[in-house]
Amino acid sequence: MEIAPIPGLADEVNDIRLRTAKIVNDKIIPAEPILFKGGKDAEPVRAEIKEHVKEQGLWAPHLPVEYGGMGVGFLAHAYMNEVMAWSPFSARLFGVVAPNSGNQKVLLKYGTEEQKKKWLEPLISGEMESCFSMTEPDNAGSDPRSIQTRAVREGDEWVINGHKWYTSNARRADFAIVMCRTAREEAEAGKPSDTMVQIIVPMNSPGLEIVRSVPVWGHTHGDHCEITYTDVRVPVENALGRVGSGHAAAQDRLGAGRVFHCMNSIGAMWRAFDMMVTRAMSREVHGGTLETKQFVQGFIADSYMDIQAARLMTINCARVMDEGGDARTDISAIKVFVPAAFERVVDRAIQVHGALGVSGDTPLAGMYTGARTLRLADGPDEVHRILIAKNVFKHYKAGGSWDFGT
Amino acid sequence: MEIAPIPGLADEVNDIRLRTAKIVNDKIIPAEPILFKGGKDAEPVRAEIKEHVKEQGLWAPHLPVEYGGMGVGFLAHAYMNEVMAWSPFSARLFGVVAPNSGNQKVLLKYGTEEQKKKWLEPLISGEMESCFSMTEPDNAGSDPRSIQTRAVREGDEWVINGHKWYTSNARRADFAIVMCRTAREEAEAGKPSDTMVQIIVPMNSPGLEIVRSVPVWGHTHGDHCEITYTDVRVPVENALGRVGSGHAAAQDRLGAGRVFHCMNSIGAMWRAFDMMVTRAMSREVHGGTLETKQFVQGFIADSYMDIQAARLMTINCARVMDEGGDARTDISAIKVFVPAAFERVVDRAIQVHGALGVSGDTPLAGMYTGARTLRLADGPDEVHRILIAKNVFKHYKAGGSWDFGT
Amino acid sequence: MEIAPIPGLADEVNDIRLRTAKIVNDKIIPAEPILFKGGKDAEPVRAEIKEHVKEQGLWAPHLPVEYGGMGVGFLAHAYMNEVMAWSPFSARLFGVVAPNSGNQKVLLKYGTEEQKKKWLEPLISGEMESCFSMTEPDNAGSDPRSIQTRAVREGDEWVINGHKWYTSNARRADFAIVMCRTAREEAEAGKPSDTMVQIIVPMNSPGLEIVRSVPVWGHTHGDHCEITYTDVRVPVENALGRVGSGHAAAQDRLGAGRVFHCMNSIGAMWRAFDMMVTRAMSREVHGGTLETKQFVQGFIADSYMDIQAARLMTINCARVMDEGGDARTDISAIKVFVPAAFERVVDRAIQVHGALGVSGDTPLAGMYTGARTLRLADGPDEVHRILIAKNVFKHYKAGGSWDFGT
Amino acid sequence: MEIAPIPGLADEVNDIRLRTAKIVNDKIIPAEPILFKGGKDAEPVRAEIKEHVKEQGLWAPHLPVEYGGMGVGFLAHAYMNEVMAWSPFSARLFGVVAPNSGNQKVLLKYGTEEQKKKWLEPLISGEMESCFSMTEPDNAGSDPRSIQTRAVREGDEWVINGHKWYTSNARRADFAIVMCRTAREEAEAGKPSDTMVQIIVPMNSPGLEIVRSVPVWGHTHGDHCEITYTDVRVPVENALGRVGSGHAAAQDRLGAGRVFHCMNSIGAMWRAFDMMVTRAMSREVHGGTLETKQFVQGFIADSYMDIQAARLMTINCARVMDEGGDARTDISAIKVFVPAAFERVVDRAIQVHGALGVSGDTPLAGMYTGARTLRLADGPDEVHRILIAKNVFKHYKAGGSWDFGT
Repeated sequence: MEIAPIPGLADEVNDIRLRTAKIVNDKIIPAEPILFKGGKDAEPVRAEIKEHVKEQGLWAPHLPVEYGGMGVGFLAHAYMNEVMAWSPFSARLFGVVAPNSGNQKVLLKYGTEEQKKKWLEPLISGEMESCFSMTEPDNAGSDPRSIQTRAVREGDEWVINGHKWYTSNARRADFAIVMCRTAREEAEAGKPSDTMVQIIVPMNSPGLEIVRSVPVWGHTHGDHCEITYTDVRVPVENALGRVGSGHAAAQDRLGAGRVFHCMNSIGAMWRAFDMMVTRAMSREVHGGTLETKQFVQGFIADSYMDIQAARLMTINCARVMDEGGDARTDISAIKVFVPAAFERVVDRAIQVHGALGVSGDTPLAGMYTGARTLRLADGPDEVHRILIAKNVFKHYKAGGSWDFGT
Repeated sequence: MEIAPIPGLADEVNDIRLRTAKIVNDKIIPAEPILFKGGKDAEPVRAEIKEHVKEQGLWAPHLPVEYGGMGVGFLAHAYMNEVMAWSPFSARLFGVVAPNSGNQKVLLKYGTEEQKKKWLEPLISGEMESCFSMTEPDNAGSDPRSIQTRAVREGDEWVINGHKWYTSNARRADFAIVMCRTAREEAEAGKPSDTMVQIIVPMNSPGLEIVRSVPVWGHTHGDHCEITYTDVRVPVENALGRVGSGHAAAQDRLGAGRVFHCMNSIGAMWRAFDMMVTRAMSREVHGGTLETKQFVQGFIADSYMDIQAARLMTINCARVMDEGGDARTDISAIKVFVPAAFERVVDRAIQVHGALGVSGDTPLAGMYTGARTLRLADGPDEVHRILIAKNVFKHYKAGGSWDFGT
Repeated sequence: MEIAPIPGLADEVNDIRLRTAKIVNDKIIPAEPILFKGGKDAEPVRAEIKEHVKEQGLWAPHLPVEYGGMGVGFLAHAYMNEVMAWSPFSARLFGVVAPNSGNQKVLLKYGTEEQKKKWLEPLISGEMESCFSMTEPDNAGSDPRSIQTRAVREGDEWVINGHKWYTSNARRADFAIVMCRTAREEAEAGKPSDTMVQIIVPMNSPGLEIVRSVPVWGHTHGDHCEITYTDVRVPVENALGRVGSGHAAAQDRLGAGRVFHCMNSIGAMWRAFDMMVTRAMSREVHGGTLETKQFVQGFIADSYMDIQAARLMTINCARVMDEGGDARTDISAIKVFVPAAFERVVDRAIQVHGALGVSGDTPLAGMYTGARTLRLADGPDEVHRILIAKNVFKHYKAGGSWDFGT
Repeated sequence: MEIAPIPGLADEVNDIRLRTAKIVNDKIIPAEPILFKGGKDAEPVRAEIKEHVKEQGLWAPHLPVEYGGMGVGFLAHAYMNEVMAWSPFSARLFGVVAPNSGNQKVLLKYGTEEQKKKWLEPLISGEMESCFSMTEPDNAGSDPRSIQTRAVREGDEWVINGHKWYTSNARRADFAIVMCRTAREEAEAGKPSDTMVQIIVPMNSPGLEIVRSVPVWGHTHGDHCEITYTDVRVPVENALGRVGSGHAAAQDRLGAGRVFHCMNSIGAMWRAFDMMVTRAMSREVHGGTLETKQFVQGFIADSYMDIQAARLMTINCARVMDEGGDARTDISAIKVFVPAAFERVVDRAIQVHGALGVSGDTPLAGMYTGARTLRLADGPDEVHRILIAKNVFKHYKAGGSWDFGT
């Protein structure tokens, strides 16, 4: 079961795609039942696959070579994501473990040498775990500027007070990167007087309390935590990047991150598509396989179109970003289009599987709630639809016209 | 927070609606956080509410008075369902606990006096629990006739072999009602030689093995079980109703059951609608409450229309059934329309709630996966859409015309 | 081809429905090809049918008996509309000719005895034709208050200046009822100082110029006219109703009118449905009739649901209005839901007919553009969706809750 | 108002795009009101623009240089179509007049030297007009093999009998290319014994009768004709290509033609988008321009996504075809996706324009019925959705997998 090289794509990227596919097809998907159950049986399987991934030079596509990663560019990583996402278990086995991976990238970009030594290296080696503490229950998640958690500079320390939730991995984490609001050093004309800063906070800091695990989709024992910060004190050198860079860092995370997320969704759509097609060819119902039923044929045709559209839009957006163009409108477009297409494709695949489709025996149920969550995470559809329109109006007002987007 | 009587509806039904609403509003919804958490804290709360329900004469609307129930008719029960369903915790607190409640109705209708004494009475008193074992992993759930589990008569015993899954409550149950295929006593011309029979099987029967809990929507510790029956032997008198009545009994369960399910969905839609409206009036975003945003106004308007359409179609169908008319086309119509409308309404309510909407802090996430499941349970959308069309064609071929459905 | 009486509906209404159906089925639909072609051949056919309608006492359901009409109530007229609308040629043959019929109702309600004698009687007898001049090219049609055409009182005359379009029937009309803005006699606190008045304007008044026929859906020779009013002078007694009643009169026209429009749409949907079903049973394609194809079965099932939902919502709204309840939210709901459902049903019927469906050989193409127009006429979908939401919020703020709409 | 070159596209193609855009923007769109009205005033305008197009070397992109055309490749023509389609009046002014242009291409590919001299040259010079007679009222238009019109070889003549409709341009045409069924010379095992042949038939042939103009979308005076062929005799040398090539020729016409049609639709979508954006920025409603309303912002965002998806899918398909790949699945995909996206975009643009949107004062109303027609012409959506699914199944059965389409 091999995929073909994409004509016109750099050989290196095609090579990464094909070798990643081989591992996902040969090693990970066959092991999914064990990996889903988890526990002791899964441990050696995971270890063996990780070893193989490292031997193949496919470990940690998000990290530079000097930190043990692949050191590949944006496009290669995006295309690799599509292939990895055929299985929900892949990313972790290729060394990309959220939220650690995102934190690693932030530390790489904004961290001082001391910070890298103290927090990044143990995070990469696995000696430490981390979390990213941004979303707040009382504010629209879509707007980092609405954040209320406040850091006040007192002498050599930051004093942090605030209320966060959906801080994933908090119970396992050794430190959090906390998005805070703080006073701007020098007031700038016409700007709000506050600015954003990210601060590294050890989880055992006095005043940091994990209130509970927020149950998500009914899973009460997850690790998406609600946390209160009450007069939490950390040294000033724990600020990540200069004061004021917090917003840019978050956007950064969200910007390229959105393309990566979309490529993940597209990979998952291919998997759902494959399951739907395979099921249709094998499942007998009243007088024939599902393959012969127009409703199922329609599901497959519509899903093919959804995947093609989602994929071409995402790749086009990635290409524009890679060439340094202004992709903001297209990033919002894929942020809206791809999760919705993902949801439709998985919905059809579930319908073709019947009761099996909502069980844990396939990855479909998880994809379905995952796709739904994507429609509101990192800015809900509505916010991004407004952004698209505003960019169009701006383009027109600057003298542009219907060449928009060509 | 009171609802108004519906003009034209029997006083008794309106009275039940209003008194049920009072309990749901005053007792159950305020207790939802405790009930969601469950455990020891919830126990006295549940007990107190049940006591109050019984005092109010609203216990067990599905049972006749002689068995401690309300002894109400079909319409009253349907309307009561709508109100109870405002909270996902209501049904159980009003004495309607699936799958026991469905089994109680089957035992009432098909059971002998001995069977009622032995199985129904302890089921009602709470001394026993039960499960209903119909769905099979290897067959389309939508067609009871495709069932492969076979019961063979050997002397005074049935010998049962088969493979079931999605048998809910199996681990707590004392007995199962098992849907089986068996040989027809006398072959009838032009009919398949097999027929269906429901058999009562104690859970501790040798040969009955609970293989596992099927994880549903990722919940690995549920009680929807996969069960194998290997040479399981029970006395002949455990057959429920005459041999051949199994299919009718299942249809029965599904027929009126579909109206009840739809009324449940409609009640849940009202709740989601209420949460969406309330949230829209209180949540501040960029420059105003959500109430002032056209996208949210659109969500509310579309949901209002969805609920009106779903509700009027279901009530109309219930009325036809109550008057003894042929409601088969309309049952299929609501079976398709209502879960889809339910899903749309909840989807919008989730979007208005953001991250809160997929958490366990509201009933929305559970409603969402519940609505999705309804689109494939008891016959997927596709099967019922075909049934509607076939009924239309049949009507035309019998000389009918566009008066269809008026 | 007879329709059945609707249980629970007044005998008189059922009687009207059935006798109307007989005429539409037996006389009008068989004559459609001739009526579509028009010209000399159609004249005697039209005359004969009109004669028969009058004999049957079914002429002019919108007029009181003293003016030669049926003198029936709101519900009877609404139900009769559904049946008449099976053919696009019916209304005219039953004496309901827009815009004359609407103008007749306005003259009946607001006209003085002199006005009735001078304008209403000849309009009913057929000696005069009329038009209704409200929509303006420079203003949102959905808001009567945005109208710019101004009437100024000068001595015994109104002097009218303005710019209208979509004034249907203008070339054949003897007079127009023109919606104007005028100064309020006494300024009321907190209200805009202008108010609305309807004025009867003879078409041959100096200053009234028919600029052109606005081509609609590409039909360049229609009679939807663009008209300029330049210092047009008419006697003060040509004001219809007291100054200030204009807005109410327009709302009136639009209010009940929306229910009538919806019943028309529903009748047309039944016709499209009937054509689709009949075609599906007779049309052979690759290996079978269309009836056996799931896509077509899906079209029929979805259309059945669309019609049921549209119909039950409209009838429910009519019932509330008939009982004097506040139906504003439901009027907006059907104003949005029914044309959209109409469009979907016709769209599917066209698809089942292929090239025939967009030809003039069936009424489908006309229904399709008609349905599309309805989505923006009398207030576009967007305006009514906002109104629904605002009514819901108002209800909640007045202490209401999720009983809304029950 | 200029469009930008597309990065990565051949300079020649970008050059054609930009120069075409200049003519459409500067000459054609400003002249639309005159061109819409037609008649004498339009004649000199048309002549002048055609002259300019010829001077610019942009005349007849579908013809080789030796016949006075541009002699450009497939991709250049496709991209040029997108730009031309900004105005519905362009194609004719660039020398691409359906159905003559399609007939010219068939004559070029299949015609003998004599046929080219006799029919092609006068068709190109404008001395002759032509029509293409394929669709039949009694058969599914989507399947050329279902054609019933029969040509029988009698000596040196073909004798043709059949019934066609939707033969456009028939009243102005000097000859028709008629798609016929005929006996295969030598029966081949396992194949139907008939085959297809295209025959050139002069319109004045005895036995050829134009029955009527089929009214389309209510336009009764169009030139889409219904034609009967009764013992129509033409010389054997009028067969176009060898007997049996008819089906391939039709597919040919439909194959590349579908990409051209889609590029036309995309150009029209850009125009509708442009009109919607411009209107939104200028139209005042209750308290602001439409630009500030979320509903309108949503329309624009969704249309942007529709256009991007349609455009990228079509260009990708064209690229595969241009490189000689198997694009059949993707041709079906764009055949379904693009007209539907076109319809949605125009629908929104109409809604933003209100009553103006259904008038002849903008091209929107024509686009709307045009888009609807495209969903059933050249094979309805349903047929192409089945084709997509069947291609997917074929791919899987040949050992392919979810790399499908990458």
